[in-house]
Amino acid sequence: MMRQILLTSRPSGMVTESNFLLIDSLLPQPGDGEVLVRTLYLSVDPYMRGRMNDRKSYVPPFELNKPMVGGGVGEVVESKSSQFKNGDVVFGFLEWADYCVVSAKTLYPVHPNMQPVSTSLGVLGMPGLTAYFGLLDIGKPKEGETVVISGAAGAVGTVVGQIAKIKGCRVLGIAGSDEKINYITKELGFDAGINYKTQHVGKALDEACPKGVDIYFDNVGGDVTDEVLMRINRFARVVLCGQIAMYNLEKLDTGPRNLFLFLINSALLKGFIVRDYEPRYAEGLMQLLHWHKEGKLKHRETIVEGLENAPKALIGLFKGENTGKQIVKIRL
Amino acid sequence: MMRQILLTSRPSGMVTESNFLLIDSLLPQPGDGEVLVRTLYLSVDPYMRGRMNDRKSYVPPFELNKPMVGGGVGEVVESKSSQFKNGDVVFGFLEWADYCVVSAKTLYPVHPNMQPVSTSLGVLGMPGLTAYFGLLDIGKPKEGETVVISGAAGAVGTVVGQIAKIKGCRVLGIAGSDEKINYITKELGFDAGINYKTQHVGKALDEACPKGVDIYFDNVGGDVTDEVLMRINRFARVVLCGQIAMYNLEKLDTGPRNLFLFLINSALLKGFIVRDYEPRYAEGLMQLLHWHKEGKLKHRETIVEGLENAPKALIGLFKGENTGKQIVKIRL
Repeated sequence: MMRQILLTSRPSGMVTESNFLLIDSLLPQPGDGEVLVRTLYLSVDPYMRGRMNDRKSYVPPFELNKPMVGGGVGEVVESKSSQFKNGDVVFGFLEWADYCVVSAKTLYPVHPNMQPVSTSLGVLGMPGLTAYFGLLDIGKPKEGETVVISGAAGAVGTVVGQIAKIKGCRVLGIAGSDEKINYITKELGFDAGINYKTQHVGKALDEACPKGVDIYFDNVGGDVTDEVLMRINRFARVVLCGQIAMYNLEKLDTGPRNLFLFLINSALLKGFIVRDYEPRYAEGLMQLLHWHKEGKLKHRETIVEGLENAPKALIGLFKGENTGKQIVKIRL
Repeated sequence: MMRQILLTSRPSGMVTESNFLLIDSLLPQPGDGEVLVRTLYLSVDPYMRGRMNDRKSYVPPFELNKPMVGGGVGEVVESKSSQFKNGDVVFGFLEWADYCVVSAKTLYPVHPNMQPVSTSLGVLGMPGLTAYFGLLDIGKPKEGETVVISGAAGAVGTVVGQIAKIKGCRVLGIAGSDEKINYITKELGFDAGINYKTQHVGKALDEACPKGVDIYFDNVGGDVTDEVLMRINRFARVVLCGQIAMYNLEKLDTGPRNLFLFLINSALLKGFIVRDYEPRYAEGLMQLLHWHKEGKLKHRETIVEGLENAPKALIGLFKGENTGKQIVKIRL
């Protein structure tokens, strides 16, 4: 026997634990080309909220009354594929379950250099690659430029800021607690931080960015983004990576019409998802691994223990409870 | 004696004729390196509204109680520069006046192929170049793609649509009268048109663009833009050229927060002004001249006669009174 978490209803507004159901079920059997994986770590990520709606987006919606699916790391315990043998540690899309059967060709081996293995869900995984391609390919940072990051203490934001420092930029992070601001400025080397819950973001930006904003890496959207956009420089680049402030709204929010700010500044805005860069994943991963080994790329994980707490961990993302990468560690 | 039009007050909200004053003044004398130009045609352009505010933008504000300044074509009647001789036809920034003194190095000769000479203010001038660089450099149209243009019957929009047709795209124009829609579809070859004053823009877009929108060339902003953005495709490009719906608002408008549409579509938005492409003006002009000669690039001018009517012509732009390029013809 094992446990699974199903999505049993679609949230309207904020996700709640009542949208999920923990059930017992039988251990599945792998078919040809498949492996049975024991889950070690599950990743919860903001994009998952979009898949909970019954609406077409860049990924199809989760199916109701089926297990939730997300990034995960696991150990192969039964293999019907020549690609993997028992004991191999793999990552890919896993079910929210103690065990699941996965097609071997959708899994990647976790590189032995990736330690702890959970880093393949964070700094050395999709969030790290998201930061790498978004900042470098869209933001194109130049030495001495000012980079502002919203959601700065999250899995993506922490990597963006550290890469921007490597590139010689002045880096300002916006986050939701003094503890997070301490972390990004004292431990990660950001030049300044703004606590958007206790400070006036506009005034704080004026003080911290007297020369305006050249690159804005946006994970958040909403009011915070309005304030940053009012301070962009000519030829500024806005890297649109997430809009977490909007994901749990029941209906479309309104705000100032600010597209003219892009007009008067000849500025660029580009949305992206990491999959747009799939052909370049190897390049990105090698560079991230290299910086990580050199100690230039630090990381932190917020770990919730127990499969049964995965819904709580996901909800926590939207309440800003994580610093760095939010992980669910599965106990057996 | 001659006449000049001064800006005597800054508009709050819509420009009115009372913001201007027509005065008589003495004929100025050119100094060394300057020429006296007799004005033949003046250009009125939407961007001029921004310069009427006392606010820094990509161009400095007009000075109060000084003559208005804008694009114009004139004839050199007295030259103190070796660059031009009497009788030369030139274009550049001229005062709203029967005559003005201009530094010769800020003027360009009107190429003999540019006929009538007023085309150097429209299809073969800044509006033509704006269309050319915005569509080709930012929009990057590919054969078979769907291009939507707001302000489609204006000086820039008419050129954008014709270049998009040359590039093999399906072209839909949005404009404010049936006459304009007739012009762009029947005379310029656009595939479809929407009259935003009489049609529901969203429904009309759904019918006219069943495959969604790949490129949106925006001259207008506001509600119309909201409707188009809701229909952009993956990897869409939004060319932000103007936001004329916003220029005369007394305070910032609000609207739906729609940046997430760029996120879920990995879409790009880029603001620009034609001056960003100054090093490539010659390339653009040669291509526009070539298409014009081949008959692939038609144009129309809406001509108002008399310097005294220049304010009315400028105001007319914001009321949608022009089809094609709005010109003021100066009589002596």
